[in-house]
Amino acid sequence: MRLPTLTRKSLERHLPILGWSKTYDKDTLTNDLVAALIVTIMLIPQSLAYALLAGLPAEMGLYASILPLVAYAIFGTSRALAVGPVAVVSLMTAAAVGNIAVQGTPEYAAAAITLAFLSGLLLTVMGIFRLGFLANFLSHPVIAGFITASGVLIATSQLKHIFGIKAEGHNLIQLTVSLFENQHLANPITLFIGLATTGFLFWVRKGLKPLLLSLGLKPRLADILAKAGPVGAVAVTTLVTFAFGLQDKGVKIVGDVPMGLPPLTLPSFDAGMWSSLFMSAVLISIIGFVESVSVAQTLATKKRQRIVPDQELVGLGTSNIAAALTGGYPVTGGFARSVVNFDAGAETPAAGAFTAVGILLAALLLTPLLYFLPQATLAATIIVAVLSLVDFSILKKTWTYSKVDFAAVAATILLTLGFGVEMGVSAGVILSIGLFLYKTSRPHVAEVGLVPGTHHFRNILRHKVETHPEIVTLRIDESLYFANARFLEDYIYNRIACDQPIRHVVLMCSAVNEIDMSALESLEAINTRLKDLGIKLHLTEVKGPVMDRLKRSHFLEELTGEVFLAQYDAVIKLARPSAMAAQ
Amino acid sequence: MRLPTLTRKSLERHLPILGWSKTYDKDTLTNDLVAALIVTIMLIPQSLAYALLAGLPAEMGLYASILPLVAYAIFGTSRALAVGPVAVVSLMTAAAVGNIAVQGTPEYAAAAITLAFLSGLLLTVMGIFRLGFLANFLSHPVIAGFITASGVLIATSQLKHIFGIKAEGHNLIQLTVSLFENQHLANPITLFIGLATTGFLFWVRKGLKPLLLSLGLKPRLADILAKAGPVGAVAVTTLVTFAFGLQDKGVKIVGDVPMGLPPLTLPSFDAGMWSSLFMSAVLISIIGFVESVSVAQTLATKKRQRIVPDQELVGLGTSNIAAALTGGYPVTGGFARSVVNFDAGAETPAAGAFTAVGILLAALLLTPLLYFLPQATLAATIIVAVLSLVDFSILKKTWTYSKVDFAAVAATILLTLGFGVEMGVSAGVILSIGLFLYKTSRPHVAEVGLVPGTHHFRNILRHKVETHPEIVTLRIDESLYFANARFLEDYIYNRIACDQPIRHVVLMCSAVNEIDMSALESLEAINTRLKDLGIKLHLTEVKGPVMDRLKRSHFLEELTGEVFLAQYDAVIKLARPSAMAAQ
Repeated sequence: MRLPTLTRKSLERHLPILGWSKTYDKDTLTNDLVAALIVTIMLIPQSLAYALLAGLPAEMGLYASILPLVAYAIFGTSRALAVGPVAVVSLMTAAAVGNIAVQGTPEYAAAAITLAFLSGLLLTVMGIFRLGFLANFLSHPVIAGFITASGVLIATSQLKHIFGIKAEGHNLIQLTVSLFENQHLANPITLFIGLATTGFLFWVRKGLKPLLLSLGLKPRLADILAKAGPVGAVAVTTLVTFAFGLQDKGVKIVGDVPMGLPPLTLPSFDAGMWSSLFMSAVLISIIGFVESVSVAQTLATKKRQRIVPDQELVGLGTSNIAAALTGGYPVTGGFARSVVNFDAGAETPAAGAFTAVGILLAALLLTPLLYFLPQATLAATIIVAVLSLVDFSILKKTWTYSKVDFAAVAATILLTLGFGVEMGVSAGVILSIGLFLYKTSRPHVAEVGLVPGTHHFRNILRHKVETHPEIVTLRIDESLYFANARFLEDYIYNRIACDQPIRHVVLMCSAVNEIDMSALESLEAINTRLKDLGIKLHLTEVKGPVMDRLKRSHFLEELTGEVFLAQYDAVIKLARPSAMAAQ
Repeated sequence: MRLPTLTRKSLERHLPILGWSKTYDKDTLTNDLVAALIVTIMLIPQSLAYALLAGLPAEMGLYASILPLVAYAIFGTSRALAVGPVAVVSLMTAAAVGNIAVQGTPEYAAAAITLAFLSGLLLTVMGIFRLGFLANFLSHPVIAGFITASGVLIATSQLKHIFGIKAEGHNLIQLTVSLFENQHLANPITLFIGLATTGFLFWVRKGLKPLLLSLGLKPRLADILAKAGPVGAVAVTTLVTFAFGLQDKGVKIVGDVPMGLPPLTLPSFDAGMWSSLFMSAVLISIIGFVESVSVAQTLATKKRQRIVPDQELVGLGTSNIAAALTGGYPVTGGFARSVVNFDAGAETPAAGAFTAVGILLAALLLTPLLYFLPQATLAATIIVAVLSLVDFSILKKTWTYSKVDFAAVAATILLTLGFGVEMGVSAGVILSIGLFLYKTSRPHVAEVGLVPGTHHFRNILRHKVETHPEIVTLRIDESLYFANARFLEDYIYNRIACDQPIRHVVLMCSAVNEIDMSALESLEAINTRLKDLGIKLHLTEVKGPVMDRLKRSHFLEELTGEVFLAQYDAVIKLARPSAMAAQ
């Protein structure tokens, strides 16, 4: 049976898999399989490590890397995005779930599952209602600051595993104090394993691939081997621990990781738990979506592909619901692994599905081998991964470019470090919006004059321009709305108070994109007041949509002056009678 | 000792009384005294009535009309504003205090006093930090809607006194249901007094003054007599109740009102109470300030005087602190009584201080006379006063002018009626800001062309203009910032995707008042992407402040095209080579 084209188009929009699967062939398959292999190798230690970062049993990291990837392969629109547990979302999960349950208890795991479900539901609903634009209210600098601060926070939180001590806290101060208090308990063997692994992993990142290439290996093989570095570290430290019985000498190990298929799980439907997790789910959804969509967009642009943000919401939403149903926790598209996936040649989301198969095999077969894996090794994996996210240069960049952006970034970083991830990102959003509103509430108003020999008007303070003593032309560099309506009134009243011969006030509206009801009332007030003083009010360069609206009010009938299409026309006409009078 | 001029100036800024008292003379005194007399006559029944509306003992209304007026006379900048208990703030007080205490208990009165103190503190601090601009975020239509809905709510809440029954509730539905449930308990005598007084007061408003004038009275006397209408109603209904012993026939009376000076009171400093009253205090402060400053500004404009909003905050703040210290409750500048004060000839804030003396005399001497005053009379006073505030025409006005403004007004009215004053005004503010952000996040982008024979560019869809096949000129009608940065990217990518011969994209920035860091990154991305496609990106008519900032980034170095002062220059230059090629 052939579906009618229209239905098929609309089905493809909601099930992107129907689109790309049509042209799937052997070459694509090979490329996807190779990419999947590399990502699987990378993802196994990461999944375990991020689960521990979230305060969850290691196997939940594996479970979160199986069915969610399949869901994304069906519903997602990016061809290179690799979904799974990521560092920042894991930290946010720990912060959210830590508020309502104690780490290590079944309630804690159940809350994490519920969080994934809630977040999945939110994302899916946002996708269906096309609310993807909401993510735009997180400004780029705020995101950059947040990711950097989270990276520092995560790396610090892992130091306890490197030292083999206990340390608690959701912010930098608590963590640092806790580390200092317990440092005398540090376990030398654990510390050695931790430092050696961290050093090794940093070297793998920078030095291994060039070394392998110089040894004559083919680039692709060198790449795979370099990516396998963390797996090597896992294997070596596990073997050493096993061989020397280090677990009896104070080295903390991962221990029992259940072998087998992911369990079927259900989220809690307890209203109290939902309401206490709700705000966290909102924040995790937005942060996860923003991180994911940025990577997806960057990678899509490189291949002239397009991603559909609203459909991405559905893709990530179903992934999280899948995580909740199979013993996982909140997931999103990861930056590092997506880049690896892309570089390794992944051509379709099928690569993600193949990765899922790889992780499934690991969960079925390899978990007993992880018994002796030191937690310090996983901590080292996390530290090396997140430190690549830390980039304080955004502070310098914004400082040079815009103090307002700088303020938002600095506040986000400080609050994230000082009060944890949820506070940091909320403050970042609120501050971005608040500062934007503040700026628009005190708009830039320029008094302009004619640039000689042109029809062009520029700021009298910046350019050599011609003006006329009876005409004041004000260019308002902002839409007029309730927050700045009164500002405009004050500005005009002050301007005319200090200059006697004024007979015309011209408002140049080329930058006025809207005049709302409050601003209209202010304009009416200005018009009346100027009328009493014998001054006429004129408007120029009013835009189409704004003019349409003004025509629906009584303002234009009451206006003492005229509305000119061009500023030049206004000056020519208004200047003339007095020029004649002067003769 | 003479103060140096600078110090004196700065003192006058903070203590406006030092300014106007210098030129105070006998004429001013006479005018102020007459105005004070009329306002006192009007304020006595209103103070009692609004105190009952707030759920407080009647005398607290009088106390709130004494010292607060003196404080405002010292610190306020408006020469006509009459401060005291007002309807909307009384209703908000009832809603706020009703959440934490039961009407009629000492805790309830103590909470109202604390609310006045908190609100006074907030206002004063806002004034000191010059945060008066915050009030601008309440748009005019939202305020109009809120006042109208509050008027309906207040009038409905008073119907129980007219019927002589009980009815509870903070929203229209609860109130109406409660009234219907208890209507069979209505007391016929109370109902008669209530309806007769209401009818009389309406007639006094419309018909009494013309009648007195036609009887040959002098206008000023006619005015004073008409203003004394409510006092007449109070006197007559009190006498009738006393004469016929109506209090024994089910007519509720005011009862004992303590005689004497206002008591000295202290607010509670209980942290729990402060935190539960905090949000209410914020809302009351803002609503009170907005109402007060609107009236003050309107009246000041009529006499070419100026008010200083930040100093007004201090004036109202100290008034509320004064209210808290002398057994009152939250006060603000009232609309009706300020107009009366102004019309009666008040020339300085001293009129307010004289009014305070009048009310003090009433509190010292007249309270025993109020024992038999029926509550129905006070309810009628309130109903007549607030119904003059009700004006649904704002719905029609905004509907014609702007659907967005309409939505904000309609939501404010519905939520105020349905969920009470606090919900209504919060929703109004959030909705105004949310809708503004939403609009700016999807800016109007117009493709423009040259109006023949001019240097002027307009929308190709609205005007007959000249375009060039290789040049796309987009005028962006909004500042570029994080919320719309991605929108611009999508818009441009879509526009160039559907048109082949394009070689130049020109962004006309005459309406771009800011480019923040996020937007800069988007512009960089657009520039790179267009470069890959062999298309050059140009900017025109970039404003001074925006250009200054761009110069501090690397964008201008990377830009494939040029930055032109005028759009016309760009088209002339870019169109030329191809015109030659076509020859």
